[in-house]
Amino acid sequence: MSIMDACRLTATQAAAQIREGKLTCEELVRSCLERIQSRDAVVRAWLHVDPELALRQARELDKSPPRGVLHGLPIGVKDVIDTVDLPTTQNSAIYPDLRVGRDAACVAIARGRGALILGKTDTVEFASSGRKALSRNPHNPEHTPGGSSSGSGAAVADFMVPLAFGTQTGGSLVRPAAFNGIYGIKPTWNRVSREGVRMSAISLDTVGWYGRSVSDLELMAEALGIAAESSAELSVQKLRVGVCRSPVWSEIEPAGAAALEQSARRLEEAGAQVEELALPSLFDGLPEAQTVIAAREGGISFLPEYVNAHALLSADLRAKVENADKISNDALLRAYALADACRPIFDRLFGDSLDVILTPAAPGEAPRGLHTTGSAVFNRMWTLLHVPCVAIPAGRGAGGLPVGVQLVGPRMTDARLLAIARVLAPVIDPGAA
Amino acid sequence: MSIMDACRLTATQAAAQIREGKLTCEELVRSCLERIQSRDAVVRAWLHVDPELALRQARELDKSPPRGVLHGLPIGVKDVIDTVDLPTTQNSAIYPDLRVGRDAACVAIARGRGALILGKTDTVEFASSGRKALSRNPHNPEHTPGGSSSGSGAAVADFMVPLAFGTQTGGSLVRPAAFNGIYGIKPTWNRVSREGVRMSAISLDTVGWYGRSVSDLELMAEALGIAAESSAELSVQKLRVGVCRSPVWSEIEPAGAAALEQSARRLEEAGAQVEELALPSLFDGLPEAQTVIAAREGGISFLPEYVNAHALLSADLRAKVENADKISNDALLRAYALADACRPIFDRLFGDSLDVILTPAAPGEAPRGLHTTGSAVFNRMWTLLHVPCVAIPAGRGAGGLPVGVQLVGPRMTDARLLAIARVLAPVIDPGAA
Repeated sequence: MSIMDACRLTATQAAAQIREGKLTCEELVRSCLERIQSRDAVVRAWLHVDPELALRQARELDKSPPRGVLHGLPIGVKDVIDTVDLPTTQNSAIYPDLRVGRDAACVAIARGRGALILGKTDTVEFASSGRKALSRNPHNPEHTPGGSSSGSGAAVADFMVPLAFGTQTGGSLVRPAAFNGIYGIKPTWNRVSREGVRMSAISLDTVGWYGRSVSDLELMAEALGIAAESSAELSVQKLRVGVCRSPVWSEIEPAGAAALEQSARRLEEAGAQVEELALPSLFDGLPEAQTVIAAREGGISFLPEYVNAHALLSADLRAKVENADKISNDALLRAYALADACRPIFDRLFGDSLDVILTPAAPGEAPRGLHTTGSAVFNRMWTLLHVPCVAIPAGRGAGGLPVGVQLVGPRMTDARLLAIARVLAPVIDPGAA
Repeated sequence: MSIMDACRLTATQAAAQIREGKLTCEELVRSCLERIQSRDAVVRAWLHVDPELALRQARELDKSPPRGVLHGLPIGVKDVIDTVDLPTTQNSAIYPDLRVGRDAACVAIARGRGALILGKTDTVEFASSGRKALSRNPHNPEHTPGGSSSGSGAAVADFMVPLAFGTQTGGSLVRPAAFNGIYGIKPTWNRVSREGVRMSAISLDTVGWYGRSVSDLELMAEALGIAAESSAELSVQKLRVGVCRSPVWSEIEPAGAAALEQSARRLEEAGAQVEELALPSLFDGLPEAQTVIAAREGGISFLPEYVNAHALLSADLRAKVENADKISNDALLRAYALADACRPIFDRLFGDSLDVILTPAAPGEAPRGLHTTGSAVFNRMWTLLHVPCVAIPAGRGAGGLPVGVQLVGPRMTDARLLAIARVLAPVIDPGAA
């Protein structure tokens, strides 16, 4: 294998080759850097890459005994996540070169397990709203890669890095996975510490990550303390899949509907027990409740910049601080109460008659243009429910761009959801390695 | 007034004198520094003070037009809260001189309103458990000032600084207020951004602050975006006070019981409508639920140090990461569900027949010795309910040390609770200015 090709390995493949002495971390990093060099003028996934620093760290890792499951793997980090050795600009005019003297929790753990931070990826301002990333969809640069984890999604899809961290407050992780044709997990809320990740809405913000296979997602999960579950007991034939069109089905586009239907049909043909699942009508209010909470909690999160750098904070975020939508305290507490009521009801859906939910990851293909990152309407309710979501590629739409679906499970069953995804992904995404 | 006495002014008094040109920020800071110089060898409230930096900033503030309601006021900051210009050690052996390069949200906002960060105050390791602060109770240095906001409570009580930030996950803010004979507020959860505050348990951790009067608490509240409410409509005679012995009354000590009874009697004699309030039996499980959540969320928060600095993390915190108490996911989700169910029930108690709850702030006086910071048993349920709590001094116990009570209101009514406290505090604490 030439160095040119190393960047195309999945994280799991690369880790194995490094472990077996067939590939060095330096070779892998050089391959990723070359890929970035050749492609990032178009894709613009990255805000900060320091090739010399990365190569120095790679050589150190090559000399070091194995530190953990991520040993030698370069990873991308969304630029709302603190890194001790690279700037954290948050795509904000307020922090053009902020140097934080500490890694975010997820970065510190990944480094402790042997990962190398290759660089910081572009994001919507503060992973909230305002300035969009400059990143483009690697499948068609005229289209958005989604957001707010725009650069992380595009970088993994474009073979610039095998793994990358993102975050999700509405649909910022799962939607870019779908638009870029890659795998992603938004774990259970607070299953992974969000310390050192820019706060947008505390009860929604969730750290997640991208890879090019379910195994890659599991590799990072294991590093972060989510031990892999055996799939020995699992088989497609034994799994009961609930197809959930969700309360926002009216927002689906033809490509999204086709992806869901094709995925369900493939699973059924492979022997899974597939049934339509309608959520209780109580759940109909969840997407709106997520909007209420994101707005009011955002008003809390952006007050420091509002006070200290008013003119440099984008108008969208100033409006949150000013509670321009005049969302009352009662409305906020009602939104919390609805989510609180729905969460245990949702968890109890699973058990004797249901193993996993299959539902759209996004309305359809990535929209054209960079003025939008697409709609989070098919993600907001799951984020608010705090439940784990795994995005799986599910073919392409009429525009030639990827479309995705997601698997959803009850809270705190992240490892089991990944094990289920390991079994179902080859059926949903038969083109995958 | 001599400079020696400036440090004894409340924040409200000092802010007025600075505004009126009767006191400079430099004079106030010099007075506080002299107080620290003369007393901190005994009290040990501070981990880091940089007198030259403080005086330089004071002179700049004296030259600057008024920046906000805190203009010229020195404040103390618990050392789990990030500051751009001073270390943030978190009383951890892992971070003996950590420079974060960025202010926590509450610090950034306070600076934006004209505050001066006088220094960092001692804390229990990561405001969780493990290493205790070296701080002593200024009323009797053989006793603890409480914890984990040990240094902030002691510093405000000992006239070293008029205002200080603390945090509460169990009882870390209200208990030291009681033990030190000062005022404190733990606001509604996430009413103030906790960004840049070391994470211990995300759904419990709350930024709060200390002062030597209710007005001082309101001054900081206003700075942080909690606009003061008029108390024109409020009078002791119109207020309906529910005396709540709480589900953990069996843990009360004679001093704590006497303080609660004396406070209730004084309020009744002053014309308030005082009645016993028994919470629904559903609430009996809240203190234990808080313990479950603090343990499991702590296990998430301390994983980075567990991975990267295992031997330097205290055994208590390693045990949390290892889930040594074997708390199941189901137990965690049950604890969340109980809190979720109780919160709206609690909020609805208020209205036609109840304005505020009066309940113990701690079991009694500060225990002897520095090996303990006292018990959070009278605080844990309120922290878990996310409700605002205002600590008010309520005399002294048989040991000669202060005892406190707290007022509690429904979520998101922080400003109203402070307005109520402004009316009731002179009755409960008639010795106050």
